[in-house]
Amino acid sequence: MGQLTGGDPSLLRRINSAVVLQALRGADCATLTEITRVTGLSRPTVEGVVEGLIDSGLVVEAAADEGGTRRQGRPARRFRFRAEAGHLLGLEIGPHRVAALLSDLDGRVLGTQAKVVDETASADERLDRLRGAVAELLRRAAVARSSLRAVGVGTPGIVEADGTVRLSTALPQWTGLRLGERLSRSFRCPVLVENDANAAAVAEHWMGAATGTDDVVFVLAGLSPGAGSLIGGRLHRGYGGAAGEIGALHLLGREATPEALLSTTDEPLHPLDEQAVAEVFALARKGDQRALAAVERFIQRLVHDVAALVLALDPELVVIGGWAAGLDGVLEPLRRELARYCLRPPRVTLSLLGEAAVATGALRLALDHVEAQLFAVTRG
Amino acid sequence: MGQLTGGDPSLLRRINSAVVLQALRGADCATLTEITRVTGLSRPTVEGVVEGLIDSGLVVEAAADEGGTRRQGRPARRFRFRAEAGHLLGLEIGPHRVAALLSDLDGRVLGTQAKVVDETASADERLDRLRGAVAELLRRAAVARSSLRAVGVGTPGIVEADGTVRLSTALPQWTGLRLGERLSRSFRCPVLVENDANAAAVAEHWMGAATGTDDVVFVLAGLSPGAGSLIGGRLHRGYGGAAGEIGALHLLGREATPEALLSTTDEPLHPLDEQAVAEVFALARKGDQRALAAVERFIQRLVHDVAALVLALDPELVVIGGWAAGLDGVLEPLRRELARYCLRPPRVTLSLLGEAAVATGALRLALDHVEAQLFAVTRG
Repeated sequence: MGQLTGGDPSLLRRINSAVVLQALRGADCATLTEITRVTGLSRPTVEGVVEGLIDSGLVVEAAADEGGTRRQGRPARRFRFRAEAGHLLGLEIGPHRVAALLSDLDGRVLGTQAKVVDETASADERLDRLRGAVAELLRRAAVARSSLRAVGVGTPGIVEADGTVRLSTALPQWTGLRLGERLSRSFRCPVLVENDANAAAVAEHWMGAATGTDDVVFVLAGLSPGAGSLIGGRLHRGYGGAAGEIGALHLLGREATPEALLSTTDEPLHPLDEQAVAEVFALARKGDQRALAAVERFIQRLVHDVAALVLALDPELVVIGGWAAGLDGVLEPLRRELARYCLRPPRVTLSLLGEAAVATGALRLALDHVEAQLFAVTRG
Repeated sequence: MGQLTGGDPSLLRRINSAVVLQALRGADCATLTEITRVTGLSRPTVEGVVEGLIDSGLVVEAAADEGGTRRQGRPARRFRFRAEAGHLLGLEIGPHRVAALLSDLDGRVLGTQAKVVDETASADERLDRLRGAVAELLRRAAVARSSLRAVGVGTPGIVEADGTVRLSTALPQWTGLRLGERLSRSFRCPVLVENDANAAAVAEHWMGAATGTDDVVFVLAGLSPGAGSLIGGRLHRGYGGAAGEIGALHLLGREATPEALLSTTDEPLHPLDEQAVAEVFALARKGDQRALAAVERFIQRLVHDVAALVLALDPELVVIGGWAAGLDGVLEPLRRELARYCLRPPRVTLSLLGEAAVATGALRLALDHVEAQLFAVTRG
């Protein structure tokens, strides 16, 4: 800081503003003297910046009894970051449900709303359900739509940088959908669309099973499996956004699909019928032989998918998520088999966030975007 | 540059030195005035730095007729970077051969030397062969061993950061070998050991089939296949250095090994007998039915390995290398099958460097090391 030599005064103002905001966000509240000390900026600069931030609603003068100890005489004015000055949404659009998470600018979750959607629903119906969930959530939390600063979205498929779904086999009418653009009509803030497994990986890294681990593969186990990877703490999307799309692996020499593997009859399960899957897992726990065999076949398939990812990427940790029920049984066989096949087997653990992973990751991506705008000193 | 405010004077001197060296290396030769202009350093600073660089042998005053046009009057002194002031080695240690490449500080190759090694050779014998090749190469090029600044080594297996081979099934006595330490006894400069496929990926990116492409998977096709990946132009080693070690993939549900797949008899080929493999490919080209079937089996296996990497990583480009002979026939089927199985199929091309890839990549890694020492402003 303070390294700028001349140049664009509005850029300088923005940088100083980000520096002050960052300092205030790190503390409960602070005096002008404290901000001056922490930032290295001059007193008049800090005064000007804080005034501007108050005008923009991002900073407020704290009440006299807020933070700090009372001293004799007139106390110094104290200021705090208004996390309530803006809000963020993290949305999930899945085959069976849509979900929304609302947070303030600190990422503190203020409310959540989910709705069931039929797996055969059209794109319009699905988006209507989502809009309904968002409207309810905002109403319940008494947050104005205009207060939203960014919206993150997680959904199955390959998602392009502009928010277009390049390919998605899990949702009807999803391939080719300009999802980012469609959702932008409902919001006046940026809408960021991400693959669901990628979003879930980000979420587990933020507040789930992968905190403190920067090389992670998250496997969204399910009838249509996918994976998301963090390399060095950063999401690895791949050159065309298709990294981790392992759903096609079973086509390679192993024509058996998960829904065939998990069937206890001669008929495969419906590709998206996860209720039926839960029943198979439940039967297996009760010792049903056909169910046990089906689960065994499924686990072998999962081992193969995960092993391919692990051999390619060599992560420190693999997090298994996706299905709420039944997955606890896959952990031990997965570890055992990975130890057999991988030269350097990673740790394997279950998702901590469960069903909330995708929406939570979408929220984190929205938060990243807003933080880059408000606090990043290096971005123009 | 010039942003330093006080601080360590020896660090400042080193940074200024790197800046001047970088400027000189970019030009054929330059005057003090030109260096001053390009670097933004003061004239006395440049004079002091250049003097120091001349003392260290890295810079020399150019002869009067070297570079630039003659002008009237006494010409300004011109200086140039002495790429011949130091040398680098890129070494390959493989199952069948050892190879060495020698370059100057600009990475210009001055000579090369390879020797056949028996695949059953002990670690000591193999290292002796390598030392012999290096000694011959240095003698032929009339380069003193003391002139070596860094040595890069590419070899099969998982290689730890300290140069220990954690696991290698291709070479006898290789697992657990402290290869970096063993080779350090022969050199007084840093020795950097890298997995062979990783080294080859770096080489193709430097001067082979992947120049201008930063998201690349290099597949070292062979009886013991491996892969190396660049993500965003940087080598992806994985958390434990095992990324791309896809040799175990065939164990997963497909017990057929390449040597069994490629056999035209009921007996599998010897695991390391690449001559036999070349014969099978040659027979297939002549239309031999058993050989054609064997090659077809092998290609299916290769497709599977490559697809697993592509689905996990989503690279822009896949480079196939490893075997000198026979691989041209795999390109079309590989492209066809990847287009079927991958949601976003990458470009697929053959290695341009062929047999030289591993040693060339090892040389590049040595060069990176030296450049970081000599030219990097940001490193301490």
